[in-house]
Amino acid sequence: MEMDTITAISTPMGEGAIAIVRLSGPEAVPIADTLFRGKDLNQVDSHTMHYGKLIDPQTDEVAEEVMVSIMRAPKTFTREDVVEINCHGGLVSVNRVLEIALASGARLAEPGEFTKRAFMNGRIDLSQAEAVMDLIRAKTDRAMNVALKQMDGRLSHLIQDLRQKLLETLAHVEVNIDYPEYDDVEEMSNDMMREKTKEVLEEVDNLLETARQGKILREGLGTAIIGRPNVGKSSLMNALVHENKAIVTEIPGTTRDVIEEYVNVRGVPLRLVDTAGIRETEDIVERIGVERSRQVLKEADLILLVLNYGDELTEEDRKLFEAVHDMNVIVIVNKMDLDQKLDLDEVKRLAADHPVISTALIREEGIDQLENAIANTFFEGDLDAGDMTYVSNVRHVQLLKQAKQALEDAQNGMDMGVPIDVVQIDVTRTWELLGEIIGDAVHESLIDQLFSQFCLGK
Amino acid sequence: MEMDTITAISTPMGEGAIAIVRLSGPEAVPIADTLFRGKDLNQVDSHTMHYGKLIDPQTDEVAEEVMVSIMRAPKTFTREDVVEINCHGGLVSVNRVLEIALASGARLAEPGEFTKRAFMNGRIDLSQAEAVMDLIRAKTDRAMNVALKQMDGRLSHLIQDLRQKLLETLAHVEVNIDYPEYDDVEEMSNDMMREKTKEVLEEVDNLLETARQGKILREGLGTAIIGRPNVGKSSLMNALVHENKAIVTEIPGTTRDVIEEYVNVRGVPLRLVDTAGIRETEDIVERIGVERSRQVLKEADLILLVLNYGDELTEEDRKLFEAVHDMNVIVIVNKMDLDQKLDLDEVKRLAADHPVISTALIREEGIDQLENAIANTFFEGDLDAGDMTYVSNVRHVQLLKQAKQALEDAQNGMDMGVPIDVVQIDVTRTWELLGEIIGDAVHESLIDQLFSQFCLGK
Repeated sequence: MEMDTITAISTPMGEGAIAIVRLSGPEAVPIADTLFRGKDLNQVDSHTMHYGKLIDPQTDEVAEEVMVSIMRAPKTFTREDVVEINCHGGLVSVNRVLEIALASGARLAEPGEFTKRAFMNGRIDLSQAEAVMDLIRAKTDRAMNVALKQMDGRLSHLIQDLRQKLLETLAHVEVNIDYPEYDDVEEMSNDMMREKTKEVLEEVDNLLETARQGKILREGLGTAIIGRPNVGKSSLMNALVHENKAIVTEIPGTTRDVIEEYVNVRGVPLRLVDTAGIRETEDIVERIGVERSRQVLKEADLILLVLNYGDELTEEDRKLFEAVHDMNVIVIVNKMDLDQKLDLDEVKRLAADHPVISTALIREEGIDQLENAIANTFFEGDLDAGDMTYVSNVRHVQLLKQAKQALEDAQNGMDMGVPIDVVQIDVTRTWELLGEIIGDAVHESLIDQLFSQFCLGK
Repeated sequence: MEMDTITAISTPMGEGAIAIVRLSGPEAVPIADTLFRGKDLNQVDSHTMHYGKLIDPQTDEVAEEVMVSIMRAPKTFTREDVVEINCHGGLVSVNRVLEIALASGARLAEPGEFTKRAFMNGRIDLSQAEAVMDLIRAKTDRAMNVALKQMDGRLSHLIQDLRQKLLETLAHVEVNIDYPEYDDVEEMSNDMMREKTKEVLEEVDNLLETARQGKILREGLGTAIIGRPNVGKSSLMNALVHENKAIVTEIPGTTRDVIEEYVNVRGVPLRLVDTAGIRETEDIVERIGVERSRQVLKEADLILLVLNYGDELTEEDRKLFEAVHDMNVIVIVNKMDLDQKLDLDEVKRLAADHPVISTALIREEGIDQLENAIANTFFEGDLDAGDMTYVSNVRHVQLLKQAKQALEDAQNGMDMGVPIDVVQIDVTRTWELLGEIIGDAVHESLIDQLFSQFCLGK
């Protein structure tokens, strides 16, 4: 495929020490050379850096002081010739360098187009490309590790193994069908098909079981803090934010323009829902209205229900218990430093199977236990994401679910005595569905859509 | 001086394709090598790039996929060994790489410390170092060009020439004083001193004359749009913003947390004052109160006073004229598409020497003329910043003003017959003051303070 030469700003926008404008494509080096006053970039070795002045060809004046890196195909991110122009990290500077590159024959890259080229040129598969974006968006170390492993091809290899197993089985059965003169061919084929689909189904199930945790690692655990006024919701919020690294993410763009706050609790990224509201008014219900707060609760993955040890249980508390009884709840009995008025037996009865943690947040007591409880709720002691292959991507989960369905259809068919060549159709479908995860034979429009969600310059 | 090895994130914070963690110092390469799985970085050539995995020494696990650039002293930004670790541009990723570098023996760089080392190691002088930061913060192409020239040493050379002239004069006079046996020594010394101080004073005056424009280029032209309700202030704001590239800058930090909007008009950066207010309520006075709006007007470098062509002049209009009569005002007669009710003769009388521009903003008429008027007010037709050496830095302006004062003291002294060896003191003082601009013999605390205003990683 004939590719043109693309360019984009590859560092985040903002004032910083260094910014990078990247070029990729057959003309990357010649374009850079025409703009560069220094060595002849067409002659330099690959993977070398060169200091010089960037010239605006329109005025022939010095436009910036730059360091240019030359990386020649195929050992590059895109497998094409890549040039990185490092300039001073100001908005005017980096835009100027980009404009000069554009005026000199490069085309502005679409979001994700560099990574798309890495995929199109066969350096990485689709699940690896998706992991690149997951890595950039990772909110915690653990989420980054999951992305890093996926980028390294962990999931790809697992999927490839499963597909290989299905393919061999299909080939084997095909041979048996072609030679029906042998004895008990149909039975042998059925047995093999049954055994192999069972094996693959188990692996698909295992992967799907990681999906919930994978989603949490990737997107954070939507967490709502609820409770009557003055039970200590703000203190809890502040304790979580101060004890841990808070990552405030501004989400620019057209549709969403909110600030989300992430708190990293033992590797679990809590996405605190409507934290501004809670901090300001101490009461999520008061601020956002009853109807919308029910919605917030419904979307939350974790509810922290706060009670006051120094106060009797009220009808309002009981209603809160009722509202969240079938959700993931941690009950927090706060203000343990006060004289007891709370009926702990009733609290435990209302909490049912949900954990109950005692705290005196004002004295910074009980925060450790609370954090353990949060981590345990979602990882059940398994705090090391390192050894597992997580499925964190919604698209992958959907495909795995469809693959599971196809495998079950195959098994049911065999149970009901459907002919083997009909069962083959479901197994072939499974093979195709798994292939879509790694980008084998996926539709071009899907690929375009996937990469369009990337950030510019990647 | 023995330097340790420093490190910092050198790209803007945020999600992007690429982020850079930079190291500088004697241990930069060995530290990078211990963290890197790939080539032996201690053995590679200078100015080469190497792909590999970054290892967390604590866990011995892969922490990131990186591209490491090795640049050996002295041909580097700091004149020390410099390593740049390019990683994926996520917050977790870049913080992880930084933490690993810190855990491996590098120290977190203070703001501006890389540039400070470039200065301490003699690669650039102080005015050049200051230009680095100006360049990053530049709001328009023109401001960037001024910074680029200053970074390249334009101002430095000019200052050095002036100092050289003063030094030669002082040496000459010194010799004359030492040999008083010659005839008319005192008169010769006085003549020379008078001539040279006059030359230097003229140059200092020239530089100071660029200061106002330099400040505007650097900080933007604080611009307030005023007028009665419904004269078209919002339309004017929108016309300026839409016709030109608006640069919205968020200023993070402890003391200022506002959003400023810059509009680039013919290379003049307009800093629109309280634009949010105007856009929302159409009336700056209404929104921020009379007292504070007086303050805004006082701080503005340019007032755009808008009138309605289809309406008679009111008492309110006349009061606005009165409030701003001694400021830089452009009077805009808008709504020229309506039937005339405005008394243009009175407007011209009230406007006095200020330019009056007619517009029909709703039909996009007159905007060009307005932009010309804005550019002319501040650059009087001299639209090319390329050939001038601007003084844009407040510190430089202060020093030049003091130098001017010292030179005038010397001249006055000579006029009053003060002995030449007393005049010498003022001239020596001038030489010292000019030296402070380029960082010659400045106090360490000043240097620390200057660089502390830099951004991290530079």
